[in-house]
Amino acid sequence: MMIILRPGTTEDKIAQLDEFVRKTGVEVQRIQGQDTTILGLSGDTSRIDPGMFDIFECVERTVKVAEPYKKANRKYHPQNTVVKAGNVEIGGNKIVVMAGPCSVESEAQVLSVARDCKRSGAAVLRGGAFKPRSSPYAFQGLGLDGLEMLKVAGRKTGMPIVSEIMSTEYIEQFERDVDIIQVGARNMQNFVLLRELSHIHKPILLKRGLAATVEELLMAAEYIMAGGNDQVILCERGIRTFETYTRNTLDLSVVPVLKRQSHLPVVVDPSHGTGLWWMVEPMSKAAIAAGADGLIIEVHNDPPHAKCDGQQSLTPMVFDKLMGSLRMIAQVEGRDI
Amino acid sequence: MMIILRPGTTEDKIAQLDEFVRKTGVEVQRIQGQDTTILGLSGDTSRIDPGMFDIFECVERTVKVAEPYKKANRKYHPQNTVVKAGNVEIGGNKIVVMAGPCSVESEAQVLSVARDCKRSGAAVLRGGAFKPRSSPYAFQGLGLDGLEMLKVAGRKTGMPIVSEIMSTEYIEQFERDVDIIQVGARNMQNFVLLRELSHIHKPILLKRGLAATVEELLMAAEYIMAGGNDQVILCERGIRTFETYTRNTLDLSVVPVLKRQSHLPVVVDPSHGTGLWWMVEPMSKAAIAAGADGLIIEVHNDPPHAKCDGQQSLTPMVFDKLMGSLRMIAQVEGRDI
Amino acid sequence: MMIILRPGTTEDKIAQLDEFVRKTGVEVQRIQGQDTTILGLSGDTSRIDPGMFDIFECVERTVKVAEPYKKANRKYHPQNTVVKAGNVEIGGNKIVVMAGPCSVESEAQVLSVARDCKRSGAAVLRGGAFKPRSSPYAFQGLGLDGLEMLKVAGRKTGMPIVSEIMSTEYIEQFERDVDIIQVGARNMQNFVLLRELSHIHKPILLKRGLAATVEELLMAAEYIMAGGNDQVILCERGIRTFETYTRNTLDLSVVPVLKRQSHLPVVVDPSHGTGLWWMVEPMSKAAIAAGADGLIIEVHNDPPHAKCDGQQSLTPMVFDKLMGSLRMIAQVEGRDI
Amino acid sequence: MMIILRPGTTEDKIAQLDEFVRKTGVEVQRIQGQDTTILGLSGDTSRIDPGMFDIFECVERTVKVAEPYKKANRKYHPQNTVVKAGNVEIGGNKIVVMAGPCSVESEAQVLSVARDCKRSGAAVLRGGAFKPRSSPYAFQGLGLDGLEMLKVAGRKTGMPIVSEIMSTEYIEQFERDVDIIQVGARNMQNFVLLRELSHIHKPILLKRGLAATVEELLMAAEYIMAGGNDQVILCERGIRTFETYTRNTLDLSVVPVLKRQSHLPVVVDPSHGTGLWWMVEPMSKAAIAAGADGLIIEVHNDPPHAKCDGQQSLTPMVFDKLMGSLRMIAQVEGRDI
Repeated sequence: MMIILRPGTTEDKIAQLDEFVRKTGVEVQRIQGQDTTILGLSGDTSRIDPGMFDIFECVERTVKVAEPYKKANRKYHPQNTVVKAGNVEIGGNKIVVMAGPCSVESEAQVLSVARDCKRSGAAVLRGGAFKPRSSPYAFQGLGLDGLEMLKVAGRKTGMPIVSEIMSTEYIEQFERDVDIIQVGARNMQNFVLLRELSHIHKPILLKRGLAATVEELLMAAEYIMAGGNDQVILCERGIRTFETYTRNTLDLSVVPVLKRQSHLPVVVDPSHGTGLWWMVEPMSKAAIAAGADGLIIEVHNDPPHAKCDGQQSLTPMVFDKLMGSLRMIAQVEGRDI
Repeated sequence: MMIILRPGTTEDKIAQLDEFVRKTGVEVQRIQGQDTTILGLSGDTSRIDPGMFDIFECVERTVKVAEPYKKANRKYHPQNTVVKAGNVEIGGNKIVVMAGPCSVESEAQVLSVARDCKRSGAAVLRGGAFKPRSSPYAFQGLGLDGLEMLKVAGRKTGMPIVSEIMSTEYIEQFERDVDIIQVGARNMQNFVLLRELSHIHKPILLKRGLAATVEELLMAAEYIMAGGNDQVILCERGIRTFETYTRNTLDLSVVPVLKRQSHLPVVVDPSHGTGLWWMVEPMSKAAIAAGADGLIIEVHNDPPHAKCDGQQSLTPMVFDKLMGSLRMIAQVEGRDI
Repeated sequence: MMIILRPGTTEDKIAQLDEFVRKTGVEVQRIQGQDTTILGLSGDTSRIDPGMFDIFECVERTVKVAEPYKKANRKYHPQNTVVKAGNVEIGGNKIVVMAGPCSVESEAQVLSVARDCKRSGAAVLRGGAFKPRSSPYAFQGLGLDGLEMLKVAGRKTGMPIVSEIMSTEYIEQFERDVDIIQVGARNMQNFVLLRELSHIHKPILLKRGLAATVEELLMAAEYIMAGGNDQVILCERGIRTFETYTRNTLDLSVVPVLKRQSHLPVVVDPSHGTGLWWMVEPMSKAAIAAGADGLIIEVHNDPPHAKCDGQQSLTPMVFDKLMGSLRMIAQVEGRDI
Repeated sequence: MMIILRPGTTEDKIAQLDEFVRKTGVEVQRIQGQDTTILGLSGDTSRIDPGMFDIFECVERTVKVAEPYKKANRKYHPQNTVVKAGNVEIGGNKIVVMAGPCSVESEAQVLSVARDCKRSGAAVLRGGAFKPRSSPYAFQGLGLDGLEMLKVAGRKTGMPIVSEIMSTEYIEQFERDVDIIQVGARNMQNFVLLRELSHIHKPILLKRGLAATVEELLMAAEYIMAGGNDQVILCERGIRTFETYTRNTLDLSVVPVLKRQSHLPVVVDPSHGTGLWWMVEPMSKAAIAAGADGLIIEVHNDPPHAKCDGQQSLTPMVFDKLMGSLRMIAQVEGRDI
């Protein structure tokens, strides 16, 4: 961390600040430029809020040098983390496709979709039981009943399941029944939920918030890892931009950045990321070409009658065709699917 | 709601879509333009997801006509809502200033700040017990102990208190001890929390998320009101923009928009909204000139040693001076403070 | 275009507005919903500013139905446009790679880079002569001298050249010497420049502004096409988001959207789009997988000594390797390179 | 400027970089942290692009210490700049209101509006002759004829005039006929235009681009000042955010920031900044309370029939009432109007 002082700061003021900084337990080194004086802080600065020095009139600005995330940082953990869910490995050479309905609607529906997805090559079954909806009047999911249906479909097809948790209330059921627990974009900074998830032993699929930076996403992962759960999968699912044609703007450029900054696996959600079913194919292929470790895709037996997000769901037939294209891109990348 | 069809859509396809739409329980009216056919939906469309029609190849786009929020909408409730917290009214003619430390640090500290704020004219005491921090390694607040200290300081000074709730876990304590329950920006779309708060009888101070639109903020208020709690105060606290000089960009233009679209009171947080103590005065004055019903301001006895956000806190002396300026602006607006 | 009226608007007011609207030369149809009345406008609405009706107190909001761009719209021109520059076709089956130095520094430099790029398979030579720099104190390019050097290198290697025009001042020289005239992101809405370029007969590479929507980009293309020049190539080069790790956020999701909404060719600039040389390879591959018709890539013989943007330039060796990977992705897409 | 090195960088690599940096003509000082080595650069770094060091694998990131703007920087010019246009001073104690029609439509119209504005207390007459329109099919202004009408109206009412220049083409006419030359938001980074304007002796009203940061706005001012024209007025006119209710989001928080970082006068355009006439009053009052030196407001004799932007124009009567309110706020601020 470096504290840049305003030009013309007196020796007196510098000494005062220097003393104040040392009390936080770090070492201070002074750098004298032509116009500018800088205090360089070394030691453990992870507990220091860079804003705290701005209160001093003589401080122009404080610059962080080290990233605030440690456990999620590739610098301190150069090897790729491979997350295991049942018999599936995420973050290894094999690209993992998670597929299934946006929301679980009935036992028959989810089982039928699960079988179709499995047949086409999906490795993990996704399905929503608790749905975060921006309107209190919209369908909110089948809740625990939906979770049970998903579990049954997962068992019958031999696929691990992933589903979204919306609060700490049902954490026991999720820990028991779900193979990968998803944290939605709107909860990426629900710190209470993240902290609870840090104490369990299940992989967490952490979706990026729609205005979140790379650092914020990795700090959210750090919350989970700080408590002892290092099975975190990062998920890009579209950010908010000025474009209104698409529901969100799928940010594929974050994929190589996350892979460089962190050792955690990275998957991409082209369904929510675009909100339009016909964009899923090009963006899925592009995601793999950009280096993603996996995809999470909505597939529905009857999109026009889906209880939510039908417009972004693929039919099983379209999904099957997509998997064919993805295999070819994966091959170019030297990876299996 | 209106469904705009792609040019050249056949009668066949239109009839099919028409039938599909009618099954949702609304009436359909057809509008024939030169190039374009539009289906106008009337009846109760609040349960219809406009995206659900996009799955039809013949649909170009769906446009919402009515706002999706009803209870928060001034259209259906033209009179201003006045929220009561203890003996304080928010949303009436009197401008309400809420002030206090970012986080409660000790009984003595919060009481001393409370007395200073009261003396200068603050009507409500604010103080953080549970702190949402982007780093798991940062100070997270004193929790229930902090809440107790705040309650004591509130009683001793005769001020109602406002404090942030971070999850449903402590909802009983908050309902019992706190006069206004704050929902932070990061939890604005924590729908489980909003739903729980809809069932209690305490005013809720709902902070706008940092990338939230007016509609999203009002839909979050709708979640609380849909369950029966109509004591909601809206709070602008800065949005994220490309500017990095300030922590956030305080959006005062939202004040007249919220006042026009909703009957709920609107307060402004210039401390978090800017992140810089010297911006609090100009932005507080501007907020009142723009029509805000109140302000929520951080005041700390010793900002350089504050456990969080010292850089945006005022000393009691600066706060006292600020209150003087605010009184003059309020007077011009024909309001008391 | 549809005008949505506020609930409770009197017949009187509706009649008044109806008459006002008809004077603009369009037909008006009335749609009566339960709470809402809508006026549907048909006829030529392209000259009508939707905001002009908002002045009426009874108008809630105006919604455009038709896209405001006509000539750039695939709806009215379903076939792909293929732009020809010398012997190169952009927008056909073959993917076109444009490569060369960010700025032309000397005759030897640009010729050497051009030869390397050509050998690796680039079809068009890019090079900056006039450089838009955010600081008046930074290197501004060699100007007309640079343009001459680029022309010579293009001739010697048999490659058409592309270079950025910054104002109408040198439009004659560009028309004479350059094969594709580039309009930079900051000039995307320099309407005077666009209008001048609409009168010449040279392909225009139009870069998307860093906060521009799809509609704004296509309206900028419309400016060029409205004057008679329909040889426009659209170029995604990164948008501004909250992320600061990369210089810009390369938005690949715009590629399928542009291809669906417009018939114009779409190329991607991964060099400016990311600002980091090591991101060029994954993002180039992803761009082709997403459906781009071409790429424009910075290659420099000695990046550390480049006069600008060295950090985002590839060495000829890295570029050569990249071209190998791109060929494989192109093949999967059923395209040549 | 400081170059932060990646952890584990060898002495060899550091020496190589050190040598490279020194060749740019600056001094280098080494700071050794616990994990991190930093090179501090001192001397004239204004010509150095911070990105140029990122090409070295050992460089993690480069941080600018000094602001890149010098002439616009309050640090080097602590006194407020007062810009003179005719007999009007902008940036002094008196708040200056510029008012007039969005676009000049006829001699009678502009004269009538000018007289009304003058009577209500406006000091400068605004009017558009050349209009930047996002559609090539929309009304583009009366051009030089419009400019002439504006000039006549200015003379007859004794008011200096401000009008927008769109390219270098008519720079002589503007220099001769216009008292304040406006650069529009879309041209804020039209560097050729800025450079030409740096050589003339007329005040420039520089509007902030809709995605521009404070630094970019001040660098645009620097372009004008670098060539010798230090009569620059900064103008906030709304930025683009995710909100679509308003045309733009008027950013009043930039006012105190600009006043602190720069000595140049700051005016606010609440008409374009919101796009809605009923927001002009609250936002104008708030702008003055936030510390603005002036306002630029659209006034039209017959808004429903305005050739552009009628929805954001005030009638002379509403403007007159507004001026009354503004006087009271100005008085609280200790300023005249």
